[in-house]
Amino acid sequence: MTLIRVVNPNTTASMTALIGTSARAVAGPGVTVEAVNPDMGPASIESHYDEALAVPGLLAEIIAGERAGADGYVVACFGDPGLDAAREIATGPVVGIAEAAMHAAMLVGRGFSVVTTLGRTAGRARDLAQRYAPAGACRGVHACEIPVLELETDPAVLPRVVALAREALDRDGSDVIVLGCAGMAGFCAEVSQRIGAPVIDGVTAATLLVQSLVGLGLRTSRRDEYAVPPPKPFTGLLAGFAIK
Amino acid sequence: MTLIRVVNPNTTASMTALIGTSARAVAGPGVTVEAVNPDMGPASIESHYDEALAVPGLLAEIIAGERAGADGYVVACFGDPGLDAAREIATGPVVGIAEAAMHAAMLVGRGFSVVTTLGRTAGRARDLAQRYAPAGACRGVHACEIPVLELETDPAVLPRVVALAREALDRDGSDVIVLGCAGMAGFCAEVSQRIGAPVIDGVTAATLLVQSLVGLGLRTSRRDEYAVPPPKPFTGLLAGFAIK
Amino acid sequence: MTLIRVVNPNTTASMTALIGTSARAVAGPGVTVEAVNPDMGPASIESHYDEALAVPGLLAEIIAGERAGADGYVVACFGDPGLDAAREIATGPVVGIAEAAMHAAMLVGRGFSVVTTLGRTAGRARDLAQRYAPAGACRGVHACEIPVLELETDPAVLPRVVALAREALDRDGSDVIVLGCAGMAGFCAEVSQRIGAPVIDGVTAATLLVQSLVGLGLRTSRRDEYAVPPPKPFTGLLAGFAIK
Amino acid sequence: MTLIRVVNPNTTASMTALIGTSARAVAGPGVTVEAVNPDMGPASIESHYDEALAVPGLLAEIIAGERAGADGYVVACFGDPGLDAAREIATGPVVGIAEAAMHAAMLVGRGFSVVTTLGRTAGRARDLAQRYAPAGACRGVHACEIPVLELETDPAVLPRVVALAREALDRDGSDVIVLGCAGMAGFCAEVSQRIGAPVIDGVTAATLLVQSLVGLGLRTSRRDEYAVPPPKPFTGLLAGFAIK
Amino acid sequence: MTLIRVVNPNTTASMTALIGTSARAVAGPGVTVEAVNPDMGPASIESHYDEALAVPGLLAEIIAGERAGADGYVVACFGDPGLDAAREIATGPVVGIAEAAMHAAMLVGRGFSVVTTLGRTAGRARDLAQRYAPAGACRGVHACEIPVLELETDPAVLPRVVALAREALDRDGSDVIVLGCAGMAGFCAEVSQRIGAPVIDGVTAATLLVQSLVGLGLRTSRRDEYAVPPPKPFTGLLAGFAIK
Amino acid sequence: MTLIRVVNPNTTASMTALIGTSARAVAGPGVTVEAVNPDMGPASIESHYDEALAVPGLLAEIIAGERAGADGYVVACFGDPGLDAAREIATGPVVGIAEAAMHAAMLVGRGFSVVTTLGRTAGRARDLAQRYAPAGACRGVHACEIPVLELETDPAVLPRVVALAREALDRDGSDVIVLGCAGMAGFCAEVSQRIGAPVIDGVTAATLLVQSLVGLGLRTSRRDEYAVPPPKPFTGLLAGFAIK
Repeated sequence: MTLIRVVNPNTTASMTALIGTSARAVAGPGVTVEAVNPDMGPASIESHYDEALAVPGLLAEIIAGERAGADGYVVACFGDPGLDAAREIATGPVVGIAEAAMHAAMLVGRGFSVVTTLGRTAGRARDLAQRYAPAGACRGVHACEIPVLELETDPAVLPRVVALAREALDRDGSDVIVLGCAGMAGFCAEVSQRIGAPVIDGVTAATLLVQSLVGLGLRTSRRDEYAVPPPKPFTGLLAGFAIK
Repeated sequence: MTLIRVVNPNTTASMTALIGTSARAVAGPGVTVEAVNPDMGPASIESHYDEALAVPGLLAEIIAGERAGADGYVVACFGDPGLDAAREIATGPVVGIAEAAMHAAMLVGRGFSVVTTLGRTAGRARDLAQRYAPAGACRGVHACEIPVLELETDPAVLPRVVALAREALDRDGSDVIVLGCAGMAGFCAEVSQRIGAPVIDGVTAATLLVQSLVGLGLRTSRRDEYAVPPPKPFTGLLAGFAIK
Repeated sequence: MTLIRVVNPNTTASMTALIGTSARAVAGPGVTVEAVNPDMGPASIESHYDEALAVPGLLAEIIAGERAGADGYVVACFGDPGLDAAREIATGPVVGIAEAAMHAAMLVGRGFSVVTTLGRTAGRARDLAQRYAPAGACRGVHACEIPVLELETDPAVLPRVVALAREALDRDGSDVIVLGCAGMAGFCAEVSQRIGAPVIDGVTAATLLVQSLVGLGLRTSRRDEYAVPPPKPFTGLLAGFAIK
Repeated sequence: MTLIRVVNPNTTASMTALIGTSARAVAGPGVTVEAVNPDMGPASIESHYDEALAVPGLLAEIIAGERAGADGYVVACFGDPGLDAAREIATGPVVGIAEAAMHAAMLVGRGFSVVTTLGRTAGRARDLAQRYAPAGACRGVHACEIPVLELETDPAVLPRVVALAREALDRDGSDVIVLGCAGMAGFCAEVSQRIGAPVIDGVTAATLLVQSLVGLGLRTSRRDEYAVPPPKPFTGLLAGFAIK
Repeated sequence: MTLIRVVNPNTTASMTALIGTSARAVAGPGVTVEAVNPDMGPASIESHYDEALAVPGLLAEIIAGERAGADGYVVACFGDPGLDAAREIATGPVVGIAEAAMHAAMLVGRGFSVVTTLGRTAGRARDLAQRYAPAGACRGVHACEIPVLELETDPAVLPRVVALAREALDRDGSDVIVLGCAGMAGFCAEVSQRIGAPVIDGVTAATLLVQSLVGLGLRTSRRDEYAVPPPKPFTGLLAGFAIK
Repeated sequence: MTLIRVVNPNTTASMTALIGTSARAVAGPGVTVEAVNPDMGPASIESHYDEALAVPGLLAEIIAGERAGADGYVVACFGDPGLDAAREIATGPVVGIAEAAMHAAMLVGRGFSVVTTLGRTAGRARDLAQRYAPAGACRGVHACEIPVLELETDPAVLPRVVALAREALDRDGSDVIVLGCAGMAGFCAEVSQRIGAPVIDGVTAATLLVQSLVGLGLRTSRRDEYAVPPPKPFTGLLAGFAIK
């Protein structure tokens, strides 16, 4: 019995529900997916500021997951916030959805383009591509300029994403489209069908990567960088995060 | 029901059997693993020459797999021979074991070292790392100088691999060890236990990555580079490979 | 009259005092240096976890600085935590001490080595070097394995840092040493004198870089990535961070 | 007396003849050029699949060349198929035409663009540029979408290549054009004259590089990667390739 | 009392005057700026040839500066000619204006574009970006095709630079504009105001970087590469440059 | 009839004679090699300062070569001084000896190490490797610490170079040795024989590369960067260099 905890690091419950549904749809038999979100932090993540302030809530959910015996974790925001910190405190593997989507994209094509929400997040997507992928794999980042919380309701999203994805394939010479927001998970199949090329949603990709790592018996290496943090005092609002 | 065809590109049946056992041990419920090897080509792959001449046999096994309705493929030699060509002719995803091992390694640590058979293959391992991973992820390649076909029988293998792995972690500052030969699959758990760090065997990693890609409904992109090859005449010994 | 706010992102006041003294020693006439630290978060920063949880406090100090009319900011922890987020909300320039030290190092030599506290932070130092410097500029990261909060009191620090610095110059072929912790600021001059090579302390370097940027009339670009974050609700412990 | 064996790895004799004529036109006094092609494999090379299946025939021609006392070899297909394997078994130097063309291009300009046949081969050209050239040297790959075997007869080739080459110089900011197919050798001089910039044909460039290496007394290093392959059994169709 | 010697490496005195005015406008209290130019070499620097022949004059001005007790130097031509040589013979720090501008740009944005004079100098700008900045920081180099010596008098310069800068921000996705010629220093403020993004002039940036390095007590490292040149005979026109 | 002008950029005639002898030994029939050196500048090149001051003399020799109808040029100092400038003013191709040696090395092995004179020149060698070769090709630079002008007379040179070369092959994992000074040309064959691996002397390699480029009818591209320099006044000592 494997328990995968999928953490949506923003505080919007409807988005968490959507993410949970996506993850459960691909999880194998014997795998329980628990989709959660913190009760502190921003309602959506659309800036470095939002991202930084989503991390304490994310870490609280990892800590809670450890108490609940989770076998692995998905960080379900395309900026992969707090991924390194989460790896230090989780017993099992932790995978970010940008990381998972980029890994999957590289397995079904030579180059990919990211289609994301706001243009201001493109820099973060490029930073992550540089961290996860060899030079040249990520060939473009394109923004539909629709805020995260309007993805569920704005009818313009699907046609906009399809148009951007088509343009990205042609202009960037890419083979694969990566969706740059957990809130786009629901569009994955339809966009793929319309553009005739693989489209990757990071939530499902990360869920199966975590399931695979658990299946392989692999955990984050405890050597150096991801060793358990040294204990020390924490004060003020964040006093509860102290590790003893 | 998912059929994954694991192709050992050399002609040594005992190694194929070992590879099949490893792959089956991790495959999920509902997944059938078929381990095969070609009947043409070299008995082991330890040079560019061997690798080049293993590819026709590998491709023959992919073609046979297509007829058998395989949903995806593992190329089970650490040089990932013929991977690009296999992707052009396979309907489902194809993953190489070096590719899979390096992907998995990057998910459980910041840097990995490869422990392989002969030093002469280190260049190929470095080439593959450059293709699959960002600069700096692969921090070293170390050879135990034991030929592939002696891995099963030489009692020196395990202690040699353990010693090399320990040294690699320290000297390279790596977090994770990648085993650089399909024939080392059987040592994975024990080496990991002895060195206290994650050790990755590509056969099992690739099997679960293929299973995951199939689960995500992802196939190799048919745009440009991996489109089906144009039909044309083939002559001589290889006439049977012509695509109509 | 220029006001530079130097934010020590941990909560240890004695370290803040030391940092303030260093910064003031180099600030030009007409420049006021205000050294502060948050009242929430970890007492020192020695892991990704510590770093992530130091960021809310850092951002609170930036917000307070904006109200106080600060012209620019120094982030005085060698991991440069929260730098991107701080740039989004600060009117004036924000410089991290790792960033400043690496910039300065590249102006007085071709290659530098970092001498830092704990080995587990070396990965972060390498990440930052990759972000700030061309490939090959950072030639090594070396840890004295003395915790941050013992730097002020442990008599072994100076000889250990001198020995590591000498070794780094020779083994890495470096020209310059970068001190990898704000808490090492006090050792800068003496280490330099003993090893006969430039040694950079990021606190002083960052203070003068911020002063220079202010002098040039340069502020963080508001295009795309560093635009002011979009307003949205924040909840729970962090509700006070909402931007209206 | 120097014997250079130029191997066209496809089975199309008319193309071999064209290649031989080009090579002979530049070879120095005292150099004999022998242009050959295998009798097994594909009629042209336009996919990874074709390329993989051209390699056994290429290697057979290298083996035959060794018996004939060849002093060096040209691999006359722009994908440089089997280059590493050929180097392991040849006594003298082996140069690929993509390799040679890119080397020559870098000696007469700062950046080059490749004009090739089918767009699906552009990925291979980019891979080779990454192997042979520093980052930034190859600034674009452009396809005329005319199949290899129509290059000799389709009157649209020359104007199409000229137009693409002009566009590539302007759009990519390149100084030099590299022709991306051995079958384009005949157009080299005229394209250069029309666009007013250097145009490189890899067949002639490789012939003179091999001649130069022979003149310098240089052979492929036998250390590690290019050592003679270890002997082992080969079976089936490819049994004849066994090295004793 | 700090003496900064700003060397315009061409022989055009009116440009030297302009550069001196810019530098003095930002220099701190207690800093004397001396702007000089050699009496040998080219009237402007618009080619590698010009640049190479400007270096002896530049070095003569560094030698003169050493006699005059200069504390640091600015090389005030965007090609940063002779920077490495100047560092070997100067006691204090030496900063080039391309170097300074790119450093400053990276502190106020993620990516910058260069707007320069002639297109033929773009290659040099790209080379310098590769030397000073991480991959991806310099996102484009754009030329207004106005010669250096017409910058002061041609009324088309300002509108042309503004138009190019706007286009560069949009097309390259850059946050910051770097002016690619010392002769553009006078336009910096106005271009910035019109395009609504930071614009960097290297002369002022370099002046404050040198002032900062002097303030930090930092000098060029004397280890290996920048050690004082070994003494030896010089002959002919350049005999006066011999170091005893 | 082809005239190749080999320019030793230092003023030491005995070294020029040695260089000429090496070049003539490999030049093909119908090729005349003219070895020259300037009458101005340093007696040897062992620093950036020497290199910068050798360039005017080098350019004077290129200008003289143009008048003499030279078909191509070799810049015979391992720092490749003035190469870009020479390309702007020469009608035929210009190749540096570091450039040629690194090109040749990449054709006979996967990685090379440089064995040079003084350690202070290692930075320049690394810079050139970064310009000419893909990342990872140059695996080390090793100095024998014997000054250039003692290479001809010091009996310790050969054993020192052999020892360093052996060590470099082992420690760097290189396949090929590149000699890092024109003055080492005479040792090439003997070092190669003793270490059992290819050893490259740049003088002979460059001579044959220039001969090959001339044979291919290739000249430096005149687009953008290497266009003829714009005419302008030159003053003082260097007035004679003005281009009309």
